Amino acid sequence: MAWRTPPRQYGAWETVAGNIAEGLVARGWDVTLFASGDSVTTARLHAVVERGYEEDGSIDPKVAEYLHIPEVFEHAAEFDIIHSHYDFMALAYSRLVQTPMVTTIHGFSSPRILPVYRKYADGYFVSISNSDRVPGLNYVATVYNGIDLSLYPFQERGGEELIFLGRIHPDKGVHLAIEVARLSGRRLVIAGIIQDLPYFEEKIKPHLDGTTIRFIGPVGVAGKNELFARAYTLLHLNTIPERFGLVLAEANAAGVPVIAMDLGSCREVISDGVTGFLVGDVGEAVRCLQRVPQIERNACRRRVELCFSVETMVQQYERVYATILDMEAKKIA
Amino acid sequence: MAWRTPPRQYGAWETVAGNIAEGLVARGWDVTLFASGDSVTTARLHAVVERGYEEDGSIDPKVAEYLHIPEVFEHAAEFDIIHSHYDFMALAYSRLVQTPMVTTIHGFSSPRILPVYRKYADGYFVSISNSDRVPGLNYVATVYNGIDLSLYPFQERGGEELIFLGRIHPDKGVHLAIEVARLSGRRLVIAGIIQDLPYFEEKIKPHLDGTTIRFIGPVGVAGKNELFARAYTLLHLNTIPERFGLVLAEANAAGVPVIAMDLGSCREVISDGVTGFLVGDVGEAVRCLQRVPQIERNACRRRVELCFSVETMVQQYERVYATILDMEAKKIA
Repeated sequence: MAWRTPPRQYGAWETVAGNIAEGLVARGWDVTLFASGDSVTTARLHAVVERGYEEDGSIDPKVAEYLHIPEVFEHAAEFDIIHSHYDFMALAYSRLVQTPMVTTIHGFSSPRILPVYRKYADGYFVSISNSDRVPGLNYVATVYNGIDLSLYPFQERGGEELIFLGRIHPDKGVHLAIEVARLSGRRLVIAGIIQDLPYFEEKIKPHLDGTTIRFIGPVGVAGKNELFARAYTLLHLNTIPERFGLVLAEANAAGVPVIAMDLGSCREVISDGVTGFLVGDVGEAVRCLQRVPQIERNACRRRVELCFSVETMVQQYERVYATILDMEAKKIA
Repeated sequence: MAWRTPPRQYGAWETVAGNIAEGLVARGWDVTLFASGDSVTTARLHAVVERGYEEDGSIDPKVAEYLHIPEVFEHAAEFDIIHSHYDFMALAYSRLVQTPMVTTIHGFSSPRILPVYRKYADGYFVSISNSDRVPGLNYVATVYNGIDLSLYPFQERGGEELIFLGRIHPDKGVHLAIEVARLSGRRLVIAGIIQDLPYFEEKIKPHLDGTTIRFIGPVGVAGKNELFARAYTLLHLNTIPERFGLVLAEANAAGVPVIAMDLGSCREVISDGVTGFLVGDVGEAVRCLQRVPQIERNACRRRVELCFSVETMVQQYERVYATILDMEAKKIA
């Protein structure tokens, strides 16, 4: 609800939630999507807030949250299962209705939110990678985020540029991508929303020269594909454990090899030496650049088709729902 | 839940909620108080968060909120009625339980929160003054906040100082109190928590000289009584409509006349010419200073005993609860 579903540009949670809804509808399920009123979906749209609070300054995020979440639960009796992408906040309502709820945890923003997860630890949870789990929660499965492969067509050949795609935030290691570019003498294009302005001002902006290191702001799907067409490799030198790394799969889908920091889920998304390289530091990333041509672009695409497609994700969620309904039936029996 | 119940110093909502709980217990009701774990009450205390989030930096206010509020509703079946002092946030859960809930609205912090009140407009609401109402809500009554009269003993005579007691915030007109002090040549003591630091730094601090205009920070009950003992009058020159004005009643309880801006509920709390004066601007406040000796200190006390005591408040809430249970019974019948 920060953004429209699907988001116009940035908005990973909304992208995934939207993809699940579309995929389930395509497979014949009756799906109601609770999202902002300007959302676009083949599911039945239920909206109480017109626009995402990040897209409309007149909306108080807390007010939007307190209008949006209870609406789902007030209609709980109409549904067999509730699938929440709304972090710990939706958990607070989950015991007040009969309908079982499964929460996809798109990441723990801080250890301070864990007490809520602990209180509702006996709920149903899905992790988006094996690495992004906390002990003690009742996980039903890990379901990797799936991308709409038709949005990222395979490109037979790439270009010569290094690309960075993601939030401009120290967690994402934009400054490390710049270091790789400087050490290797390659051009770098940086795209993404600025989430940490002081970081951008201090660590990124001084290096922008308009030619060798460029910043082009946030890009949508078309912009990503243009970048992929010119990409030699995607640099993703995250400084904290990645939770999933949607952009790694998107780049691979287009055939672009990825050099990623070996932290968190990167090892689950990237097959080292097959769809890219996992590295431990900037020096290793620079050395790997020479080996990029060894990566078969077809292999990148194939792995995404197999593991990170919307179809795969939706089928896995179907199994999650079936498992939960089965467990619920046993509870009652 | 920002503060302990009752609060150690500042915390008007917690004070009122605590007073109602104590008063109801004294009158034989079975009361469970949902509050921070360090709260002190004769009611049954139910706590899931150890300390108020304003008193413990390790607690994330949002996390505390999402632990605290649903806890009440998860136990709803144990109660005949839920009395919420938790603004619009508790409304979000109210339709998910059978137990009726009444919300005392301690003030609308912003028009941006009104959409939540509108969604739940058919709930039960209590306003804390006739002036602090918005149209369209299902108000059951206005119940004025009651104070514990034993905490503020009547003082036969006051002193010569002007006093300001309240949050240091432009809404409370601390700068206007300073103007009155300067124009009248009287000493002024300012007490309260600094809620708006830039305001304090720019509009208050430059006037503090340690003798004629002094700032003593927040004070508890004992500190208030000391101030009342030295008070010629309490200045309350609020710049926006007051919602209730607990401190006006506290001052009056001690026998201290009040000069208040004629905005919002001040006219309901202060009887003009009897327990103080209602004014329209600083000039009028200065002129009223000469008339302060005309105010009978006993009359101030008597009015508080009659209208703003915990006993009166609790009896009115008993009527509110009875009305609601009656309405609920009719719904079912």
